[in-house]
Amino acid sequence: MKFRRSERLIDMTHYLMEHPRKLVPLTFFSERYRAAKSSISEDLVIIKTTFEQRGVGTLQTVSGAAGGVMYLSMVSEQEAREFVDNLCQIIADPSRLLPGGYLYLTDLLGQPAILNEVGKMLASAFAKKKIDLIMTMATKGIPIAQAVASHLNVPFVIVRSDSKVTEGSTVSINYVSGSSKRIQTMALSKRSLQENAKVLIVDDFMKAGGTITGMINLLDEFQAFVAGIGVLVESEYPEERLIDEYVSLVKLTDVDVKEKKINVVAGNYFTKKQSECS
Amino acid sequence: MKFRRSERLIDMTHYLMEHPRKLVPLTFFSERYRAAKSSISEDLVIIKTTFEQRGVGTLQTVSGAAGGVMYLSMVSEQEAREFVDNLCQIIADPSRLLPGGYLYLTDLLGQPAILNEVGKMLASAFAKKKIDLIMTMATKGIPIAQAVASHLNVPFVIVRSDSKVTEGSTVSINYVSGSSKRIQTMALSKRSLQENAKVLIVDDFMKAGGTITGMINLLDEFQAFVAGIGVLVESEYPEERLIDEYVSLVKLTDVDVKEKKINVVAGNYFTKKQSECS
Repeated sequence: MKFRRSERLIDMTHYLMEHPRKLVPLTFFSERYRAAKSSISEDLVIIKTTFEQRGVGTLQTVSGAAGGVMYLSMVSEQEAREFVDNLCQIIADPSRLLPGGYLYLTDLLGQPAILNEVGKMLASAFAKKKIDLIMTMATKGIPIAQAVASHLNVPFVIVRSDSKVTEGSTVSINYVSGSSKRIQTMALSKRSLQENAKVLIVDDFMKAGGTITGMINLLDEFQAFVAGIGVLVESEYPEERLIDEYVSLVKLTDVDVKEKKINVVAGNYFTKKQSECS
Repeated sequence: MKFRRSERLIDMTHYLMEHPRKLVPLTFFSERYRAAKSSISEDLVIIKTTFEQRGVGTLQTVSGAAGGVMYLSMVSEQEAREFVDNLCQIIADPSRLLPGGYLYLTDLLGQPAILNEVGKMLASAFAKKKIDLIMTMATKGIPIAQAVASHLNVPFVIVRSDSKVTEGSTVSINYVSGSSKRIQTMALSKRSLQENAKVLIVDDFMKAGGTITGMINLLDEFQAFVAGIGVLVESEYPEERLIDEYVSLVKLTDVDVKEKKINVVAGNYFTKKQSECS
């Protein structure tokens, strides 16, 4: 059975999207469709051009015997701006205020469309770095880690505050929660991290940066390296922050419990500069 | 600017895959490509036919003013068999044995490709049910919940063993862990679940079914309903199980710590019958 170009384009788009950042040899497609490699190459040019024109992704071609083609998802500037603006509005809803000035954000971390967009944005922010693994802290960092991991096509590992029997032997450290100054414990399964791994740390929320500093110290124990830090929400913090190089999508500048006002602005994603607390 | 059919097919495939189970009006596409609705309809027929021939998905068309087209991911019988066979082999690796006869499975729950396939399979198992929400228990159920949620395009909520300040007010219950018979607590944020919601419960592992029974009882407290139960791994359990209607992808039939042998077979996914413990 022969495949027409239109069918090939649809199935190739589907296949590449299902396997982001995986190098697919051209022979895979030419066998799949019983088509000449030259036709496959033409197809790929059409797909790449269309993806790039719409700003939704691109194809990277690696030539040679071990070569092939790889899909990378992208977020256009416009799409990112619209998403972040929308997110700011959602977060600024006064009904999110909890006693003690905390914000209820858990619902956002359970919405596939939001997570997919967050994942795409953080993945694209670190697209040029060599990343072997994503690391996060349970519980609320997990959805962010999974979303980023799926776009970068790398595994993610979960640091926990307890060590369960099903984790096997663990390495644990004590760390000081930055804002509450309390000493807490975090543990990671020994099997889950290789020496020299380049690790992207992600989390849902960062204030003083204590949890993230803890994860950096934990990486030291494993002799692994920080490749980057990405958070969904950063919160203004009056004292010196423990972390100064990171990417955030939105920034909480002010929470006024009495006036029931929440101020949220875009994070440093768009500038990608080092931001220091004011 | 006009779009050629090939470009439309690629971009439509991309758009539909990025928005699974979302009803997209035909006018959206005809405006996006400045094309007649009749051309868009023809495009959609080509996409639907290609998806179905490859067994990777389908398009559902809803006619009328509020109508449109919706993408549903599918898993072919062959793809599912290969995946489950592979998973059985991975899990049967004796190096996964932990003290006490437990198995290390955490690494599987951090691999995007595995999670995507698990999500697709469980989503397709419950594709015909009306599901408003996915529910799971922290920590290891979360990746499964997120994967299923992304294919069903519904939110997921996380039941926790503690209640954090950032969850707001919670409803908590005590439950008896089925195998250890210990009394434990689970809590869910009050805001996260509506009355009458139809909820799909998922988890990574089920033995006696105590945790899942707890989640069912928690749903009662919210006056919500169980729409289905899906687990990645079920374990043989000699006594009467608390849950008898569920879908599992793989089944642990025997773990012999002394001989370092793990027996794993396909779960009831392929029969989708009620399975009783032997």
